[in-house]
Amino acid sequence: MKEVLRIHGVDAAPAADGMAPRPRVIVIGVGFAGLKAVRELRREPVDILLIDRNNFHTFQPLLYQVATSGLQPGDIVQPARHILRGQGNVDFRLATVEGIDFNERLVFVDEGAPIPYDYLILGTGVTTAYFGVEGAKQYGFPLKSTADAIRLRSHILRCFEEANEYTDRVEEGLLTFVIVGGGATGVEMAGALHELFSKVLRKDFPGLDVDRARIVLVEMGDHLMSAYKGRLRTYTLDQLRKRGVELLLEEAVVRVESDGVRLKSGENIPAKTLIWAAGVRATSLADKLEVEQTSSGRIVVNDSLQLQGHPEVFVTGDLAGATDEQGQLYPQVAQVAIQQGKHAAKTIIRQRSGLDAEPFTYNDLGMMATIGRHAAILERPSGFSLTGWLAWLGWLFIHIIALIGFRNRLSVLLNWAYNYVTWDRGPRLILEVGAEDGGQQTADGGL
Amino acid sequence: MKEVLRIHGVDAAPAADGMAPRPRVIVIGVGFAGLKAVRELRREPVDILLIDRNNFHTFQPLLYQVATSGLQPGDIVQPARHILRGQGNVDFRLATVEGIDFNERLVFVDEGAPIPYDYLILGTGVTTAYFGVEGAKQYGFPLKSTADAIRLRSHILRCFEEANEYTDRVEEGLLTFVIVGGGATGVEMAGALHELFSKVLRKDFPGLDVDRARIVLVEMGDHLMSAYKGRLRTYTLDQLRKRGVELLLEEAVVRVESDGVRLKSGENIPAKTLIWAAGVRATSLADKLEVEQTSSGRIVVNDSLQLQGHPEVFVTGDLAGATDEQGQLYPQVAQVAIQQGKHAAKTIIRQRSGLDAEPFTYNDLGMMATIGRHAAILERPSGFSLTGWLAWLGWLFIHIIALIGFRNRLSVLLNWAYNYVTWDRGPRLILEVGAEDGGQQTADGGL
Repeated sequence: MKEVLRIHGVDAAPAADGMAPRPRVIVIGVGFAGLKAVRELRREPVDILLIDRNNFHTFQPLLYQVATSGLQPGDIVQPARHILRGQGNVDFRLATVEGIDFNERLVFVDEGAPIPYDYLILGTGVTTAYFGVEGAKQYGFPLKSTADAIRLRSHILRCFEEANEYTDRVEEGLLTFVIVGGGATGVEMAGALHELFSKVLRKDFPGLDVDRARIVLVEMGDHLMSAYKGRLRTYTLDQLRKRGVELLLEEAVVRVESDGVRLKSGENIPAKTLIWAAGVRATSLADKLEVEQTSSGRIVVNDSLQLQGHPEVFVTGDLAGATDEQGQLYPQVAQVAIQQGKHAAKTIIRQRSGLDAEPFTYNDLGMMATIGRHAAILERPSGFSLTGWLAWLGWLFIHIIALIGFRNRLSVLLNWAYNYVTWDRGPRLILEVGAEDGGQQTADGGL
Repeated sequence: MKEVLRIHGVDAAPAADGMAPRPRVIVIGVGFAGLKAVRELRREPVDILLIDRNNFHTFQPLLYQVATSGLQPGDIVQPARHILRGQGNVDFRLATVEGIDFNERLVFVDEGAPIPYDYLILGTGVTTAYFGVEGAKQYGFPLKSTADAIRLRSHILRCFEEANEYTDRVEEGLLTFVIVGGGATGVEMAGALHELFSKVLRKDFPGLDVDRARIVLVEMGDHLMSAYKGRLRTYTLDQLRKRGVELLLEEAVVRVESDGVRLKSGENIPAKTLIWAAGVRATSLADKLEVEQTSSGRIVVNDSLQLQGHPEVFVTGDLAGATDEQGQLYPQVAQVAIQQGKHAAKTIIRQRSGLDAEPFTYNDLGMMATIGRHAAILERPSGFSLTGWLAWLGWLFIHIIALIGFRNRLSVLLNWAYNYVTWDRGPRLILEVGAEDGGQQTADGGL
């Protein structure tokens, strides 16, 4: 069973007499954590194999812009092999991981023999959690992958085409878009939908009263953006209200049907679209591994991100159930993933030198989210915060920098400049997209 | 049955006393012909309704670049409503036309009441024709729509991923790409595949011997690009040979299976990919109309592009079975479509002034095709022809100009500049795409 698989495209160390073969590091997930770990190991004499079910990295913080026609899918994704170019000790494998034998140190994939490893870094991220809300999975639109974004975009545009033809169906909720979840994804989505409707589709559909379109944001808590301080929450609320977004706080969706949403309060909102930004759960791989998990499925690890009893196995990013000194789980944002990926790689390097693992410490750079043109919020751990123009410019700048690949940066920059100057949007295409499950990466709007 | 439908977004003429209502012109197909006709009627006091099953125009001459990762789908498509912006007398309808009653002047669509017209312009183009070759439809990859292009791109990349893992499957044809048809589409595809393999995938797959990938071009005739003169045919042949493309002239595919292609000569080529660029047939709508058709399904019209007995019905573009003075059917290229769309619109304007229809005359601007970097052919009706560098620059220039929309022109220009300078390609993404049938437009590489 434990046959040694050849790794292609790797500078294989010759198994010279007396020399031990190079250890193999398997990294699962082309997310922020996995990519950072691979990069960090670039000078190590190890053979790295990066595995993902998609052949590309998705920059999830900007998925909502694809869903609202601001960017093309290709602008925010980057082929894994492109990212790995020039790094001699890594190969990529397009496969779905179906299980792991931690004792035998084997990764099982959907096709081919099990793959042995010496070190393992898990970073498969999260997928959408529906918390058992009836109909939410069937009728709701998640936003975790490129395919999700294209599907939602096509659906929104189809609703407008239908409303243009059958105006009476607007009454029935054809142009009512309910967003569940008042975190970064929900807020950014609400703001972007408003811009799409009021600036772009208003011109595309001159015969349709676009003001009849409703954006309803439903949040269980008594405020939006609960991770931020009071001033920024209030600012967000005001900005969304100013844009006509209907805010339902301390409210929840209890049932979703094809033509409407039933709320906890008993109210029924006729709506053809429910966008589910309410929660995430660890990818299904975590449930298959017979490891200790948090309530949202994250894999419990020690403070060096290692799996209990397996110092050679690291869990990173959204998937990791690591906690800070206060025992709090780390937020599921890109920055945590990047720093944890780096920590796992550095720990492997230490272990190979006979050194002990050090605990992971999170260097919080702050967080930010955008509501729309000239409107964003930014908060640093020091307490420094910013709203409006400057925060918005900061958000644009940071997101351009964080994107992987020169071409993507250039393309996003040009698209944003075009959108800004013309109040227009690009590819408003209705396309059919097959089933594709993303969810190997982090998706929070915070960076 | 003949209820009057409201057209939204149209400057409806008030039905003032004694004033006749504005005539309605229905244009079917957002292709080169339909769009030109709509544009030409912009100052006429008519209500135009443009109908297509897609909400966008596809610039089909560049589909092969999407299939080979050179461009993103959004670069070569443009939303119909975006193109129509600012033209007050037109609305768009997303629908599939299922039939036409020429006597009652009604268009039947998949949803909603039949739509009455006073004038009708048909421009639904062509779809792929398999000429009854067994297995061709089932296993072959056509290239007529954005969805086709994304599907082919994903398949090509998946073949390389699989070959990287299972090298022995290269023997079984995993990296053998058979193209059927030595016209513009087949030749451009062969050239683009060569560049993708030798410049991009070679770097993406350093552990794979990419030279083992085969590109086989099968053509029934004894030369490629039969529409061009001898010198250009020979040049094309030489250029493809220089790039290692295997040319099988006077050869044909008689059967396609999941793992190979059977040729007329009896030879069997193990191959996992067959790209079908061998022929087209009028879209299925033509077959439903009980009108006279040519052998490839094109609708027979008089020399003013009018349907027999129906001077208010025009057939344009690839769908039109119009002939020149020599009785030859016009080539199915963008230029013919554009000029025919214009002619139909002008004839409607003449008819409304009580003037007779004039015959359509084609102003042949010439044709061009590209084989790869610095290699293209160009021929003018005067006999002037060009190959190499200059023809290639001319091809780039003309295609940028011909693209619809400033954003698309800019994006394609930047992508080409990037590809040229870096020898790289952009979005090499494997995505699942649902079934979508394009084929409302022209697709020849000639412009």
